[in-house]
Amino acid sequence: MNKKNLRNRRWVLENRPRGMVSKDNFKFEESDIEDIKDDEMLVKNLYFGFDPTQRGWLNDMKSYMPPVQIGEVMRSSTISQVVESNIPDFKQGDIVQGSFGWQEFAITNGKGFMNANKIPEDIPVTSSLSVYGVTGLTAYFGLLDVGKPKEGDTVVISGAAGATGSVAGQIAKLKGCRVIGIAGGVKKCRWLTETANFDAAIDYKTADLNESLRELCPNGIDVVFDNVGGEFLNTALTLINMNARVVLCGAISTYNDETPTPGPSTYMSLVIMRARMEGFIVLDYLDKFPEAIRELRNWVKEGKISYLEDIQEGIENAPETLVRLFTGQNFGKQLLKIAEPD
Amino acid sequence: MNKKNLRNRRWVLENRPRGMVSKDNFKFEESDIEDIKDDEMLVKNLYFGFDPTQRGWLNDMKSYMPPVQIGEVMRSSTISQVVESNIPDFKQGDIVQGSFGWQEFAITNGKGFMNANKIPEDIPVTSSLSVYGVTGLTAYFGLLDVGKPKEGDTVVISGAAGATGSVAGQIAKLKGCRVIGIAGGVKKCRWLTETANFDAAIDYKTADLNESLRELCPNGIDVVFDNVGGEFLNTALTLINMNARVVLCGAISTYNDETPTPGPSTYMSLVIMRARMEGFIVLDYLDKFPEAIRELRNWVKEGKISYLEDIQEGIENAPETLVRLFTGQNFGKQLLKIAEPD
Repeated sequence: MNKKNLRNRRWVLENRPRGMVSKDNFKFEESDIEDIKDDEMLVKNLYFGFDPTQRGWLNDMKSYMPPVQIGEVMRSSTISQVVESNIPDFKQGDIVQGSFGWQEFAITNGKGFMNANKIPEDIPVTSSLSVYGVTGLTAYFGLLDVGKPKEGDTVVISGAAGATGSVAGQIAKLKGCRVIGIAGGVKKCRWLTETANFDAAIDYKTADLNESLRELCPNGIDVVFDNVGGEFLNTALTLINMNARVVLCGAISTYNDETPTPGPSTYMSLVIMRARMEGFIVLDYLDKFPEAIRELRNWVKEGKISYLEDIQEGIENAPETLVRLFTGQNFGKQLLKIAEPD
Repeated sequence: MNKKNLRNRRWVLENRPRGMVSKDNFKFEESDIEDIKDDEMLVKNLYFGFDPTQRGWLNDMKSYMPPVQIGEVMRSSTISQVVESNIPDFKQGDIVQGSFGWQEFAITNGKGFMNANKIPEDIPVTSSLSVYGVTGLTAYFGLLDVGKPKEGDTVVISGAAGATGSVAGQIAKLKGCRVIGIAGGVKKCRWLTETANFDAAIDYKTADLNESLRELCPNGIDVVFDNVGGEFLNTALTLINMNARVVLCGAISTYNDETPTPGPSTYMSLVIMRARMEGFIVLDYLDKFPEAIRELRNWVKEGKISYLEDIQEGIENAPETLVRLFTGQNFGKQLLKIAEPD
């Protein structure tokens, strides 16, 4: 690749969203590509990964990582190909997984949050952002380490057809639990019961959530794995069993609210049921990632875990692809393909 | 005592409160006193104990114990004297702690929830309902087992001048924590810092809670011990540290709300801070009560724990004495003295 002629097209944050994030919050611009230094490499991005948590990075508030600044390239996970490298561990042509943001090219020293990991050659490259990426790992650690499911437990998962929920539910099934998923639409619900082995699925778009949950969980709920918040969490808390674990993975239904969303009015169920509601951040488990990925790969190889990827195309569609997460359009891990490898 | 002439005056639940509990929800009536059976004893009540949780027993809903039924004597903890006994372990004149409700006399077989425990002669009888009763024990197990304070932690306690909060705070001090209490009024706040050894107290009636908490907890909060709920919990959650423990002991600010109170809109701090919010019921620790009471007695004897009792008088004042808890009038454990021992 002759990088002399290259320009970098990229999306930067133009203003902070109030309410629903939209294309208007970002600016599409071009920039030059600098020369790499002695400890750097230049990568070409092939895919962007989208996660609900990225919405939080757009707010100017203290969180588990700093917000994206105005004028800064939108942060996201990526799959990339090395164009030119001064780092001994990486050579031209390598396919790597990193967090290089919404741009065509990036320069990195491979360290910190902007680190890079070579993607093993025996897995599909996109799986490094889906089932073996932070979404799959979030399911793994959230369910097993925080949810602590026991054989025979009833596990209820919201956002169940999403990249994390679908994997969490299948792991719960592997642990001998009865698993109920909540998802939007017939197609997603059918996939949950027919392909992902869930015991039942509730279509929140048409069902009475309270009634359906009550009917499908006659013995109460032992583990709630919540990606959604709002009405779901409020209802689920009324059905928890003694010593239940409520895993707070996300609250996607509230991320675009303009004013603070009320928390669950039913939270005092935690007292009556001596239960806990607990949050986690998957990055805390970094040192256990290799072991978890090994286990996930075995389960996928044995046909015990299925996963879905929803791949859109074209860097110009990055903002709209992020919005898909909040309108429930994505079915499985949301990705955006922006280039072919050379 | 010649029980031939005795009539039993008692308060029964007449109708379920909507909103604030009041005298109108109860009926004061007289009843006969039956003869005791072979395995029973007759006791005369000397004191009633009042706890915020009793408000919950008036609602017709599933909880950790069944609601008080309409027409039934209001359930409460009691200190009583044995009048006549067919139970070998109890003899006339014994002073016992039990749960015999808002009435002058009760008949019990000493088992189940209506059990009876002799009060050791070397402690003030009322302390069996305060520092050595469920309120002190709630502080002990809630703070130590759920809150897990470590030396140097910042611990924030709401309802800090109440029977439970005040003991929880003093135990946290004994464990080497920095302790901030929230209470209503100058008198209570002064007691917290001058007698109970709290590092600081916030008078919620006059202070800006958010501002004061931020100022007094420059390094964040490691343990929240919440008796109050509502605005307090919402604010405290914005200040929690990594791996903080939020002990749900109660939510007294919401117990008399007619419609469901919104939960804390800030609950997603639990995710960002990998923190947990957890409920407990002190009755689960029954088998550890003796050991905890032994430790509490030592601390009191060594002058390391002070406790307060707020003793009203007269059985006719039972409903109004319950209301005192919800208007913040009580200062320390709320008791009602209804008779002298013989």
